Amino acid sequence: MDSKAMRKRILITGASGFTGKHAVVHFMKKDYEVTAAMRKEMSCEGASVVSCDLENEDQVMKLIEDANPHYILHLAGQNHVGSSWEQPLSYVNSNVIGTLHLLEAVRKKVPTARIVVAGSALQYNPSDSSTLTHPYSFSKTMQILVSEAWAKLYNLDVVIAKPSNLIGPGHSNGVCSIFAKKIAAMEKGDEKKELHISNLEARRNFIDVRDAVAAYEHLFLFGQRKAVYEIASSVCYSLKEVASMLRTLAHVDFQITNDEANSEPFLIPDTSPLQLIGWKPNYSLEKSLLDILTFHRQTKD
Amino acid sequence: MDSKAMRKRILITGASGFTGKHAVVHFMKKDYEVTAAMRKEMSCEGASVVSCDLENEDQVMKLIEDANPHYILHLAGQNHVGSSWEQPLSYVNSNVIGTLHLLEAVRKKVPTARIVVAGSALQYNPSDSSTLTHPYSFSKTMQILVSEAWAKLYNLDVVIAKPSNLIGPGHSNGVCSIFAKKIAAMEKGDEKKELHISNLEARRNFIDVRDAVAAYEHLFLFGQRKAVYEIASSVCYSLKEVASMLRTLAHVDFQITNDEANSEPFLIPDTSPLQLIGWKPNYSLEKSLLDILTFHRQTKD
Repeated sequence: MDSKAMRKRILITGASGFTGKHAVVHFMKKDYEVTAAMRKEMSCEGASVVSCDLENEDQVMKLIEDANPHYILHLAGQNHVGSSWEQPLSYVNSNVIGTLHLLEAVRKKVPTARIVVAGSALQYNPSDSSTLTHPYSFSKTMQILVSEAWAKLYNLDVVIAKPSNLIGPGHSNGVCSIFAKKIAAMEKGDEKKELHISNLEARRNFIDVRDAVAAYEHLFLFGQRKAVYEIASSVCYSLKEVASMLRTLAHVDFQITNDEANSEPFLIPDTSPLQLIGWKPNYSLEKSLLDILTFHRQTKD
Repeated sequence: MDSKAMRKRILITGASGFTGKHAVVHFMKKDYEVTAAMRKEMSCEGASVVSCDLENEDQVMKLIEDANPHYILHLAGQNHVGSSWEQPLSYVNSNVIGTLHLLEAVRKKVPTARIVVAGSALQYNPSDSSTLTHPYSFSKTMQILVSEAWAKLYNLDVVIAKPSNLIGPGHSNGVCSIFAKKIAAMEKGDEKKELHISNLEARRNFIDVRDAVAAYEHLFLFGQRKAVYEIASSVCYSLKEVASMLRTLAHVDFQITNDEANSEPFLIPDTSPLQLIGWKPNYSLEKSLLDILTFHRQTKD
């Protein structure tokens, strides 16, 4: 068998997104044969790029048939809490029906492939509707219920991942990226030297997207079928701490202003199942923030 | 105000189905102004009949706009456990996406209308995937989660009904109808004088469809927003008891044969919330079975 025939084939959906780009880089480096699926084709060095709308059942069937993957990393979907209020149906179609099309194609074409589905720390508990706060959360919970149901009913090899707030270089709507982008603009003299934060004491768990992508690989290789894995760091930081850390990294001084400073209860996700299969994060928050800042210093939007 | 202007407008989806036909009759008798929505138009005396595919978002929007209902009885959907295994996507599209289109149209056009959604006693518990046994069950649970989510997120006036096995005159795939149809054929001399039952001791809760339709009216008038109501009778019968009762009603004698006789645990659904708002069933199992038998005696299939 030559080395090409031994390479594992991975299909990454949502490959042009924030996490998707990092995932393509990671699995290329690790010598996987990568099919990068995205809605609108973009070049992706070394990977085969396929344009596919997951809401189109036939396109998904062809995608799976052509890629014939051993592993599928399902990252595609919509993820803006705000716009989910106005377009809830579109969120259900992308996040739930898109996933269902993928699962159906796997069932029919590659029933032994392992699928890692990226859920969200923002899911709600379906047995307690008081925990439901926006349509995005609803769509992610439904996505995971669909995935668990197909694993149970059709014996598909599904593993669920629940990442906390993913941070790192690249275009992202996360709060670290928004702060860093502002600071990079201040460094160029384009903005007022002020960083405004609505609630200084709000605490979040941040995990570098490169650590998360390494966790996904661990799930393919060592994860338990049908299990749910939280991907997170062991410390939660307040937004005030994030801003202070960014200030020490910045080439400019600025003021931090705020509306309020209310701390809310925040549980640290339990990452012991992931650690049991050999994963640990490699990026400190400071290193992640520096890389985000460097990205924004070098990027024109 | 003339009497016409005072009449309450009700939209019934799935109006050509087993329950739908009884619902149209019931609400017409009670002097509601009825819009009967169905996939393929059939005449429905006294009601306005509208052809609508709930999977078509635009058709649903127009349906709701034109009917402008005070009440919506949502009965449409697919309900065969067996075929759900082969066509699970079609079940999700009918039962979940169809419901979502309806809820979205209500949100945009008649946000104060009360919607009674007919779930199923066969729903599973989303927090315990071991309770999930077929894709039909999955689709019904998702349908109810969607309904509860839209009630919570968009403050829609949703009431959930969970009927047990609905029986009564009309075309139905239920076991009582199958038995009665065979007996009617035996009476005509068309079939072997034998009724085969796979498990004699299997116990089921049966409720007459006319009692269920009366329960739906109670839910419109007196039900609590966001609450879940079981619609059931207070006794569970074994299939052996059903067959024996049918034998006493039949004009022909026949043998009852079986594969096994294993009794399974079966809980009687809790109908006290429905009884608290004034509903009680009026049809005994014997009366229901006689009416089903009469229906099959008079109907050529």
